[in-house]
Amino acid sequence: MKHGLSRRRFIASAAVSMVPSAVAIAQPKGKGLMGMLMSEPQSSESKGKTDWKDAGVLDLSNSPYAKLKTVPIRAVVIQDGFWSQRRKTNLVASIPSMHDELLEHGRLDNFLRLTGKSNEPQKGPVFSDSDLYKWTEAVGFQLQVGDQAELKKKTDAIIRDVVAIQEPSGYLNTYYVDDRKSLRMQYDVQTTGHELYCIGHMLQGAIAYYRATGDPTLLDAGIRFVDNFLIPNYGPGINQKGIVSGHPEIEMALIELSRTTGNPKYTELAGYILHGDSRIPLRPQQVSYMFCGIPFTTRTKLEGHAVRAMYACCGATDYYLETGDQDYWKTLNVLWNDLSAHQLYINGGVGARATGEAFGDAYELPNAQAYGESCAAIGNMMWNWRMLAASGDAKFTDVIERALYNGINSGMSLDGKTYCYRNPLAFDPSGESRDRHLVDGKIRNAWYDTTCCPPNLERTFASLSGYFYSTSADGVYVHLYDNSEMNWHLHDGKALKVKQETNYPWSGDVKITVSPATPGDFVIYLRIPGWSVKNSVKVNGKEIAGAKAGEYFAIRRRWAENDMLDLSFDMTTHLLKANPAVTEDRGRVAFQRGPIVFCMEHLDQPDHDAGMSLAGYTVQPASETTAHFEPHLLDGVMVLTHAGTISKTATDAPLYFPASTPKAPESPTTVKLIPYYAWANRTPSSMQVWIPYKEV
Amino acid sequence: MKHGLSRRRFIASAAVSMVPSAVAIAQPKGKGLMGMLMSEPQSSESKGKTDWKDAGVLDLSNSPYAKLKTVPIRAVVIQDGFWSQRRKTNLVASIPSMHDELLEHGRLDNFLRLTGKSNEPQKGPVFSDSDLYKWTEAVGFQLQVGDQAELKKKTDAIIRDVVAIQEPSGYLNTYYVDDRKSLRMQYDVQTTGHELYCIGHMLQGAIAYYRATGDPTLLDAGIRFVDNFLIPNYGPGINQKGIVSGHPEIEMALIELSRTTGNPKYTELAGYILHGDSRIPLRPQQVSYMFCGIPFTTRTKLEGHAVRAMYACCGATDYYLETGDQDYWKTLNVLWNDLSAHQLYINGGVGARATGEAFGDAYELPNAQAYGESCAAIGNMMWNWRMLAASGDAKFTDVIERALYNGINSGMSLDGKTYCYRNPLAFDPSGESRDRHLVDGKIRNAWYDTTCCPPNLERTFASLSGYFYSTSADGVYVHLYDNSEMNWHLHDGKALKVKQETNYPWSGDVKITVSPATPGDFVIYLRIPGWSVKNSVKVNGKEIAGAKAGEYFAIRRRWAENDMLDLSFDMTTHLLKANPAVTEDRGRVAFQRGPIVFCMEHLDQPDHDAGMSLAGYTVQPASETTAHFEPHLLDGVMVLTHAGTISKTATDAPLYFPASTPKAPESPTTVKLIPYYAWANRTPSSMQVWIPYKEV
Repeated sequence: MKHGLSRRRFIASAAVSMVPSAVAIAQPKGKGLMGMLMSEPQSSESKGKTDWKDAGVLDLSNSPYAKLKTVPIRAVVIQDGFWSQRRKTNLVASIPSMHDELLEHGRLDNFLRLTGKSNEPQKGPVFSDSDLYKWTEAVGFQLQVGDQAELKKKTDAIIRDVVAIQEPSGYLNTYYVDDRKSLRMQYDVQTTGHELYCIGHMLQGAIAYYRATGDPTLLDAGIRFVDNFLIPNYGPGINQKGIVSGHPEIEMALIELSRTTGNPKYTELAGYILHGDSRIPLRPQQVSYMFCGIPFTTRTKLEGHAVRAMYACCGATDYYLETGDQDYWKTLNVLWNDLSAHQLYINGGVGARATGEAFGDAYELPNAQAYGESCAAIGNMMWNWRMLAASGDAKFTDVIERALYNGINSGMSLDGKTYCYRNPLAFDPSGESRDRHLVDGKIRNAWYDTTCCPPNLERTFASLSGYFYSTSADGVYVHLYDNSEMNWHLHDGKALKVKQETNYPWSGDVKITVSPATPGDFVIYLRIPGWSVKNSVKVNGKEIAGAKAGEYFAIRRRWAENDMLDLSFDMTTHLLKANPAVTEDRGRVAFQRGPIVFCMEHLDQPDHDAGMSLAGYTVQPASETTAHFEPHLLDGVMVLTHAGTISKTATDAPLYFPASTPKAPESPTTVKLIPYYAWANRTPSSMQVWIPYKEV
Repeated sequence: MKHGLSRRRFIASAAVSMVPSAVAIAQPKGKGLMGMLMSEPQSSESKGKTDWKDAGVLDLSNSPYAKLKTVPIRAVVIQDGFWSQRRKTNLVASIPSMHDELLEHGRLDNFLRLTGKSNEPQKGPVFSDSDLYKWTEAVGFQLQVGDQAELKKKTDAIIRDVVAIQEPSGYLNTYYVDDRKSLRMQYDVQTTGHELYCIGHMLQGAIAYYRATGDPTLLDAGIRFVDNFLIPNYGPGINQKGIVSGHPEIEMALIELSRTTGNPKYTELAGYILHGDSRIPLRPQQVSYMFCGIPFTTRTKLEGHAVRAMYACCGATDYYLETGDQDYWKTLNVLWNDLSAHQLYINGGVGARATGEAFGDAYELPNAQAYGESCAAIGNMMWNWRMLAASGDAKFTDVIERALYNGINSGMSLDGKTYCYRNPLAFDPSGESRDRHLVDGKIRNAWYDTTCCPPNLERTFASLSGYFYSTSADGVYVHLYDNSEMNWHLHDGKALKVKQETNYPWSGDVKITVSPATPGDFVIYLRIPGWSVKNSVKVNGKEIAGAKAGEYFAIRRRWAENDMLDLSFDMTTHLLKANPAVTEDRGRVAFQRGPIVFCMEHLDQPDHDAGMSLAGYTVQPASETTAHFEPHLLDGVMVLTHAGTISKTATDAPLYFPASTPKAPESPTTVKLIPYYAWANRTPSSMQVWIPYKEV
């Protein structure tokens, strides 16, 4: 059964609803969102939403194919626990310091100079506007969870400066001006110029800010770009020019714009872009690299630029959530299976190759050379969040958790002021790497000229409470565990409070207090993590059988105030092996305890100063792993120790030598591991996630 | 002690010998080589050479710091044996088919159109001229070992068409003409435009052709380019413009031009280029990638584009051979140690990364992703040939042999008509690789638009006999072993015939008959390969003690006609391990027998059709390896068999799984290995050099 709009139907429907008839376009002109919402009711499908406070990370309230609905970010308060430190740091250190960095590097001057308020030349790469927008989105999410008057004031001012440069045509971009004006939206520029990418981030930032404050200033500017400039010139219709997103991003932004305004035309435009445009000549390499330009539904594998691919998948999933197009759903699942079977790093990162910041071949997952861009891990989480909404399948939540706790969390330093662009799984600071993201040998830096990752991390952490729960027709889903309190309601409007008390992820015990306003029948879906082999779930002290790893455990009953759930997950440390086709991981194991992937940093090893390298260590899988919490280490982390050996001469070996060479003498040692996310927060030291093992 | 010319001295000496005084430049103008050699004696250092037949691969006869002197290519006849088939194929299949390919792809039309003889548009990348020149060099070497009237006729005609486009200024290039004329030698173009690279290959081709035929037509055109265009405009001197070779190549060509003409000014120009030019603004990344642009003597590691680095090292070693500059020698040895300790693939290939066709970090030697460009392995051999000439140290010959028999020999198919651009150490034809050098999944192709490797392979095999011997002040060095006969003379002029009879490299027994014209005292230096642990050397049946692996074994005695040497090298198959820092090789062994590195092709395994992949095989190091010759397989190869296991379910594993998962059942099997150089000559099949092992 095919629900989707074919290309033909797009063009046909466009002829009715959006092609350049003066009426269709003139309608929202100059009125912006508030005008649209308040004075001009939309079609019956689109329900104008005036309660801007009720939207979550996404607003899936009217998405017909979203099995799960988001819960507002502000409805969940994360309390003291694992994530509170990170989120506090994000607010007090990361967002303010990134504000200053953006200004110092001319990202605001780029706007100011166009209104004569700055004499600075244009600075930064073509996508520089997006950095400011992504930061604005982080602020928007942050303001959703609490008033920050000073931050809001700064951001209001920035937004005024941004919208001030919008041209009467609706066009808004600080790069394609002056001498470069003639390049705007040229086909070659569409593939590389990031004009639509910037607008996509502008829309996302604008929506988050609108949902925080009700202020539609930035959002209206975005709508003007789309309504006045984009659709009339590049939208569906035989008289318009071709369109390719180049760096996918605008697709999901457009669909969220439909959700925000209630106007489906933006979703239709997103579908039109996702379909590709055969009028734009693209080489196969571009189609692969950009992950756009051909019908999304013809994709069979993840390839090319990892962030582009992840964002394209986000947009395509959003499109499915609105249309139910089964071709999209089929393709998305083919791609997800490729991800999980061939392309996913154990830290949840994706993108093996530095060249093109790209996916490699199947099973090509090098460790030291891993790219694992922070943005790609975030894109992975965003995509899986949408897949989860579509399906309610816990396998997607497992990927979210893997990425969030590891390959995303590693992207920001513990003090919140420096960031990883790459997140490799092995590192040698003494190696003379030619990685352009290493500055003076440091992998964490406050600023990158391509500074996509830092504000991306900030918006992710700022919106984190929006990922804890979803609601469904029959109840509520619990996705993530940390000390927190949700105050929201079920679909029938019944108010519901859910309180979590836990030391997760260090402990597997979670106490949940469920308090509906009045007693009622509904289902609580508890996520049983995929790594939790043995589980215990008690309701009001009574064990309930049937919880299975990697599934949502549905507890359907009549819930009343202060009903108690006691969850106990299996915190056994797992030593994991990789598929033998992952050549670099052969003969190695990785340590995972709960959702946390661990790593060895050389400086933690008892004999690290004896001139030995990490290459000389092995662990013995048959031995027990001991876990203990070190409150003063790295802001407080669980540390693992495991029996191993250290070979004294391993690093002196020649490049090749006979296998019969007597082995270097080995001494027993105890290997110490810290959470991967916390690596590279002390003196530079070599690091590895995958550790050679030896059966003894 | 510092022998080299400093930059200051260059400029000073240039002011005397080569800067744009009308006299200095006008001198050779229009006269060309024969004029220079016959009518205008050079300075006392430069001895005009009229006997063009006596030069070898290089002409080191007057190189003061060459401990070893080359033996003419024509002085050694390679007879039926290991290399004869390859060389015959090179002559009857490769050189003729590449001629046709070059013409079909417009490489000659590029010249013809400039004289109105063709209406075809310019075809191919900026360096396309070099393809024709390198092919001409192959022909030159081929004509040095035997008359080929038809081939000579064709090549003479091509040379006439090439020189016909030379402009009065001396400039000669088919790409920077018409609209692109204004770009010539612009600084940005010098870094990428390959103008000097093309002239370097022209000079090398011209010299080989001159040494074959005595015909200086092409050589004179090259001299005109250098004398009339290059030196006056870009040579040393304060009024000239900056120069950077961009892709090193011209350095070694200029020095060979000095050796050929007896005029040292070309060596001085090469030194000037090797010194770099601070007037040309280069980013650090360019300096790294191009391996030129800064003083060669400031280099401390191999990096950047592997072929560029190897060719730069060739030029720098040539410069040392002429000048004895100890700073160069020191740098060359630092770089060579980096090569042998961190960067050398076991097949003698270099260049780990596809990105930039470049060296990776130390120990970054992936297998399937290995680049190992054929040209880089050839550059490696060429460099080591020069280091050997400078030192007489057998460690350089070991690298030559490793590259020649493996990573170079693999570059040409057995039928001589298709070529590898990359030479990976593992391959899966069913993998959806995005390698741009794979055409329809085939790694061997008749043509690449960047067709540097095929003619490079052809010139290497055509000149092979020139690498067998060298002479020294006190005798003769034997570098390579194969059925062959040398007719040459010692430095004192005494005629010497050396005949080898052997089944090398399949057998380690070599019988050498030494026949000086008259009895005399001199030394025969026999190379004992580094892999040959146990050795026997007999002179006239009597064992001589002292032969050591990896050294030249000097036998100083009075030699007379038909003196017999019986050598016996150790043909034990070695199972080799790699340094643990080479992460992909961990838990794997490679097989080497004599100089031949082996590999597994899946189609040779008894159970290859049972749906199993190479990833399921292991070998047991403790078992014996059996070697047997299969005369009808792959033109006749030694085949190894070794006990191993095959796991039936290895490929079905998920991406990550608990280390405690019961292992898949394994069956004993016998693993069959073929020489690496012969891989991919049958039905496409997966291949690996490094094979997982398991101690049982």
